[in-house]
Amino acid sequence: MQHLKRIEQLVHKKIPISKDMGISLSKYDAEGLVVKAPLHKNINHKQTVFGGSLNAVATLSGWIFLYLMLDGFESPAHIVIQKSSIRYLKPVPNDFEAICEWPDHKELVSFQKMYQKKRRARIELHSKILVNGEPAVLFDGVFVAMPC
Amino acid sequence: MQHLKRIEQLVHKKIPISKDMGISLSKYDAEGLVVKAPLHKNINHKQTVFGGSLNAVATLSGWIFLYLMLDGFESPAHIVIQKSSIRYLKPVPNDFEAICEWPDHKELVSFQKMYQKKRRARIELHSKILVNGEPAVLFDGVFVAMPC
Repeated sequence: MQHLKRIEQLVHKKIPISKDMGISLSKYDAEGLVVKAPLHKNINHKQTVFGGSLNAVATLSGWIFLYLMLDGFESPAHIVIQKSSIRYLKPVPNDFEAICEWPDHKELVSFQKMYQKKRRARIELHSKILVNGEPAVLFDGVFVAMPC
Repeated sequence: MQHLKRIEQLVHKKIPISKDMGISLSKYDAEGLVVKAPLHKNINHKQTVFGGSLNAVATLSGWIFLYLMLDGFESPAHIVIQKSSIRYLKPVPNDFEAICEWPDHKELVSFQKMYQKKRRARIELHSKILVNGEPAVLFDGVFVAMPC
């Protein structure tokens, strides 16, 4: 948890708009990474969360997930997002969290092999934002990692 | 231009994070809508623009373009984004602008017919962000409009 707090502070410092959005890292475990943000800092004209903020928080959840994963494997990496797609299924009327899920074990092994062999590998990550337990936003992002 | 300034102030008020991002509306003409934002408010750890900000500004360019277009047609509308995809082709190391282009005339006519007939219509809009005249970010968004 202290580690997550440290990463959160680093993200706030290096990507200041993430601090304006009020993002915080709340959990990183076998289910994935949870990134939270409040409604009031990301509100739109309909009193729900602005689509650009939903996308930004989902993007960050993927980026930070990959950072934490590679850091856990002791491979400090330079990570960039290559492309993403997002579906806005329903409005998000409250504080929210983006959950970036662990990829399939098979994909993970293939990513790691490529990373070790080519010093550059690509992985697709999936994040979701739920409202009352149902998907409100589904995000797919392709990230590329290279050793620093 | 005064009209654009008024819309810009409205967007800043209704979507406060757009003000934190420093967005401004610089042009709306036969080429499309140009939405600007500065590097320093949207910077990341690599001293380039954060992907989440690139997406948010592109999303806003589509949303505001459709708002202006329907307003021009004297049809005040409620507009939501349904889905989008984005490709990050190269880093954006400077202040930047997202250009939302006018759709093909054929698409526009079909959108307008549907809007008049069903009181609800969908349109795909394309925005781009250039660096030194070359595409750095390509964004496709599907927006849905309903009369207010």
